[in-house]
Amino acid sequence: MATCFNTPQVKYNSALRFERHGIPADELIFSPVVRFVGDRVAAVAATSPKIAARALSLLDVDYEVLPAVFDPEEALAEDAPKIQPGGNLVAEIRAETGDLDQGLAGSDYVFTDKYYTPRPSHIALEPHTCIADVSRDGPLTVWSATQNIFAFRVLLSGIFSLPMHKVRVVKPPVGGAFGGKLEMTIEPVAAALAMMCRRPVKVELTRREVFFATRTRHAAVVEIKTGVNRDGFIQAQDIKVITNTGAYTSSALNVLGAMIDKAFKQYRIPGMRCQGYPVLTNTPVAGAMRGYGSPQLILAREVHLDRVARELKLDPVELRRRNLVRPGDPNPRSGATLGDCYPLECLELGAREFGWDTWRRPILPPHKKRGIGMAVGVHGNGVYGVHADITGVTITMNEDGTGILFTGAHDLGQGVITILLQIACEVLGMKQQDWSVIEADTAYVPWDLGMYASRGTWVIGQAVKRCAETIAAQVKEKAAQILNADLEKLNLSGGRVNAPDGSSVSLRDVVWEIQQKDGRELIASYSHRSTFNPTSYGADFAEVEVDLEQKTIRVIRFLAVHDVGRAINPLLVEGQIEGGIQMGIGYALSEDLKLDAAGKVVNASFKKYVTPKAADMPTLKVMLVENGERQGPYGAKSIGECATIPVAPAVANAVADALGREIHAFPIDLRALSD
Amino acid sequence: MATCFNTPQVKYNSALRFERHGIPADELIFSPVVRFVGDRVAAVAATSPKIAARALSLLDVDYEVLPAVFDPEEALAEDAPKIQPGGNLVAEIRAETGDLDQGLAGSDYVFTDKYYTPRPSHIALEPHTCIADVSRDGPLTVWSATQNIFAFRVLLSGIFSLPMHKVRVVKPPVGGAFGGKLEMTIEPVAAALAMMCRRPVKVELTRREVFFATRTRHAAVVEIKTGVNRDGFIQAQDIKVITNTGAYTSSALNVLGAMIDKAFKQYRIPGMRCQGYPVLTNTPVAGAMRGYGSPQLILAREVHLDRVARELKLDPVELRRRNLVRPGDPNPRSGATLGDCYPLECLELGAREFGWDTWRRPILPPHKKRGIGMAVGVHGNGVYGVHADITGVTITMNEDGTGILFTGAHDLGQGVITILLQIACEVLGMKQQDWSVIEADTAYVPWDLGMYASRGTWVIGQAVKRCAETIAAQVKEKAAQILNADLEKLNLSGGRVNAPDGSSVSLRDVVWEIQQKDGRELIASYSHRSTFNPTSYGADFAEVEVDLEQKTIRVIRFLAVHDVGRAINPLLVEGQIEGGIQMGIGYALSEDLKLDAAGKVVNASFKKYVTPKAADMPTLKVMLVENGERQGPYGAKSIGECATIPVAPAVANAVADALGREIHAFPIDLRALSD
Repeated sequence: MATCFNTPQVKYNSALRFERHGIPADELIFSPVVRFVGDRVAAVAATSPKIAARALSLLDVDYEVLPAVFDPEEALAEDAPKIQPGGNLVAEIRAETGDLDQGLAGSDYVFTDKYYTPRPSHIALEPHTCIADVSRDGPLTVWSATQNIFAFRVLLSGIFSLPMHKVRVVKPPVGGAFGGKLEMTIEPVAAALAMMCRRPVKVELTRREVFFATRTRHAAVVEIKTGVNRDGFIQAQDIKVITNTGAYTSSALNVLGAMIDKAFKQYRIPGMRCQGYPVLTNTPVAGAMRGYGSPQLILAREVHLDRVARELKLDPVELRRRNLVRPGDPNPRSGATLGDCYPLECLELGAREFGWDTWRRPILPPHKKRGIGMAVGVHGNGVYGVHADITGVTITMNEDGTGILFTGAHDLGQGVITILLQIACEVLGMKQQDWSVIEADTAYVPWDLGMYASRGTWVIGQAVKRCAETIAAQVKEKAAQILNADLEKLNLSGGRVNAPDGSSVSLRDVVWEIQQKDGRELIASYSHRSTFNPTSYGADFAEVEVDLEQKTIRVIRFLAVHDVGRAINPLLVEGQIEGGIQMGIGYALSEDLKLDAAGKVVNASFKKYVTPKAADMPTLKVMLVENGERQGPYGAKSIGECATIPVAPAVANAVADALGREIHAFPIDLRALSD
Repeated sequence: MATCFNTPQVKYNSALRFERHGIPADELIFSPVVRFVGDRVAAVAATSPKIAARALSLLDVDYEVLPAVFDPEEALAEDAPKIQPGGNLVAEIRAETGDLDQGLAGSDYVFTDKYYTPRPSHIALEPHTCIADVSRDGPLTVWSATQNIFAFRVLLSGIFSLPMHKVRVVKPPVGGAFGGKLEMTIEPVAAALAMMCRRPVKVELTRREVFFATRTRHAAVVEIKTGVNRDGFIQAQDIKVITNTGAYTSSALNVLGAMIDKAFKQYRIPGMRCQGYPVLTNTPVAGAMRGYGSPQLILAREVHLDRVARELKLDPVELRRRNLVRPGDPNPRSGATLGDCYPLECLELGAREFGWDTWRRPILPPHKKRGIGMAVGVHGNGVYGVHADITGVTITMNEDGTGILFTGAHDLGQGVITILLQIACEVLGMKQQDWSVIEADTAYVPWDLGMYASRGTWVIGQAVKRCAETIAAQVKEKAAQILNADLEKLNLSGGRVNAPDGSSVSLRDVVWEIQQKDGRELIASYSHRSTFNPTSYGADFAEVEVDLEQKTIRVIRFLAVHDVGRAINPLLVEGQIEGGIQMGIGYALSEDLKLDAAGKVVNASFKKYVTPKAADMPTLKVMLVENGERQGPYGAKSIGECATIPVAPAVANAVADALGREIHAFPIDLRALSD
């Protein structure tokens, strides 16, 4: 075991969000034990990639081969090689409501299934990249394609023993993330090299490296036992999940906790138990990925429910109709309401639009099979209930009536800044071009929890709304004086404050008066804490065609119906859903990092790792249920993650329908099925 | 007259501070009429200074020679060439209190004098420089060695018709300013070139260019008529000032207004009148310079008062003792108090320390003459009473207990940021190294009026104090809960909140609790408006030796005693005063931009423009009167400008004492005197 490391020996957890989080810290910048193919042992900095490659080729690492284990179920065996000193089982998570045993005992039928979900990669178009610099006597500055500047500040501050104001993390424009840039990977390497060189150091991963050296979705083994009455009402459900967290703990606990949380928010189940076992193996590290636990759970549960429906000879839509949560239902674990939730409306609208009841299997050549399937998905809005879900927003009005918005929101391509500006404009009667935005730079913006958990619109949007409202209140107060009008009756639009009698004053004049007459700047900092976490839902419907000769599955037609509360920007919402469909189809049919016998990823390229291309996409339609969540900003709820959650089970159920057989392993492998 | 200009034809006033100021706008980026040697007619951008110089040499400008006038008194003549269409007299400013005529009529003696004060340059070590950039699709960004980022934003936004959020002005570290970088000079040239090239453009003046193409102090002609009783009590004073504002209006009105303002704040004078006439001439543009009108006024008045004392055979110290304002005296123009002001204490402490009463003229060779002189100076604290004097400050506490201070204060070498941090640390019990500061960048910091008018500590310091206090109040509230202690009895020091019983909690833990338990960021934006403008005073004492053979004057010994309220950073206060002494000696003895018959500056180099060097400096001593101004932050008042104001008259009076004759023109020219 090597002992000569010239970088800090501070152990950390790359998923740490807060200064003191209490999650197991088992990572180092460079590891003296290689726990998976992709672990970091050394780094080279050079003035060109060519020189760096040549220098790397001169490094001679003397490896002692240790025993390894790659399968999470095998890793739980008594005699399995221990990946970390504490053993391979990171923790046991358990949640229970009602009486499971009584529920199972009282059921007419009990069905049990076991499902294997895959290990996809996020495949954001932009690979992981960062620049670290300490060369100008300033703070350690790290420009990173990150989803969480403040979490990276906590981590870098801890690893390099720097106070937080001596660490600056900046997020430049980012080319996609999907959770894969939430946990820290290459940044401490760049920082350590920059400190040694006293020059800026850029680290950029190749696509191959992104595949095996960043994060994957947790592969999972999901066992479900469901007790159901003959009339189709679920009495009890027992879910046991083993997740493969790879060689380091990272976000194993958070992802499993989030997964189990959702299990209680979808159906009315009198007796419910969930148990989770995150397990270490000698494989690439798993972490956050769009859905954060929900895709594994919902894929297994929704495919299982289709089997239940078949056994009961009940229509799958009808089975769900009988069991889905209703608006205002409580979360049985906390008693808190699930909010203004309309999964049933999604289901019924979708079934109608898709022609679920009237669909007939077409007559095709014998090697071609058509089928339809559907599934319901569920996800949250931020992390209230788990962490303090807070964000700060500052709005400064310039004296010409233009504004500056300071926010820790990270635009990653999802358009969150556009939505925040829409909200600010709605409150203040301004246009988007009237704003400049200072975004995601720890040196300048108020604190934010990070760009994950579908919290952009729900939490940050609400903060912007309230911050803008404090500005609007001051604008109205001054305008009421100027116009000699009733403050309550003023309205802000078109860059003006308008009174009912038709008189008005420009925002520019109001801001100027406040500055020059009242002698103060129109500036507001608002710190918002989310105190509610409603649930977003979607019901997806798929038609597939399986070609038994070509061994191909093609999604022909897809309908996604989502309960988004209210779409502040319908185009962006639809974009999220369309992207989510693409990701979900890949999850069902093709995306999985495969390892060879030595634990090396064998498909770390876009050629070998198959994701649906534009030509593979079905004819698709998106519909929104917009009844409004009364606690959301203008009624909005989240969509970012929920967009992808019901997709894979809808596709899987359609394939099962086409083939007329059960499917238990994903991505669906027609060759394996036909064996 | 050329008409082909490809830059905006928006007329502006380079001294504009607010969006709507109402001061005459007579400048253009490039002028079709050359009004002084140094006016801008064209600019060349190139990739190297060498190429630019070569391109410039190829420019052939066809000048039509117009009549010119360089002397302000001559420029007032009916038939003088008109520099601007409105004529050469910019305005007439007049202020009067009591009954001047009655005062003069009732006086035992009336003395009249006329003084000529020079046109020095600021000679900051760093020349004027800026970079403008529009190349990255962002706002027009101008990095400028400026004293006023927000004023430059107003100007650039107006000239280029851009909304304010599309203009960003950043002040990098600046090597001295002294008012010379308050008004805008080269920035629109750089911006116009950058917009044409779509590349960053840097403009840096040579020292020679700084001398004639930026700003000078206003040369002034000051006529003073004083009515005084035989017991030395002044009954009336009539002051008439003509200032030479050069070829453009710039800050002519503001400077003269500020000058007249001070005339009423020094002595108790029953009948007082001031009249000011800013006059345009074909000379370099005059503008803001340390003291902002006071040096001209005080040089003339204090030299004149020494003549009065001589005529009355009264000791000059005694004359001033009888007439100086006392603590709490009202400003006769407004009735507002001058504040906790102690010029008398400065005078008496200084006289004692200097040995004024016991000094005897030493026996020297006949060509060497010794003399002593003294003078009292006065200046303000910010601009309350003239403009809304406002500043914003934001403090963000990081979750490890370190802080970020956002301020529009500009450190120009004077150390204002150090003082602001001292104040924040005093309130919050922190150390300076616990802070990072975001300073003077319109994209990030709250609005501020600009770094001038000796308002740094008085206005911005107060804002930082109050902003820090709102943070401290929240810290104490949470700490009181944690410690179960009485909030009122908690004290913040050493990075901890301490209770009387010896228990304590770290600031770090408190901030963490507020974030995680209360779910909000500890952030405060405070907008402060100054509602008081007390007066700072200084009494200076000088001993000089005149060598009639060498025609040299050497200041041997200098004592400066200043009423600063309270010195927050004594070292910085003393540094200000020492620098002020150097500048004042230059004002009295050597510094003046001289023009040839064609209006061209003939001494635009450090070789020809003589400023006191280190070897020319006297033995000096600084003493502070620190009785505290009750409305100041920790009792502090201004020093930046007041530091230089009494210096020149103290030196001049010492020279007059040595020579035994009156002096009416500055800088003192022994050759002219001996004619």
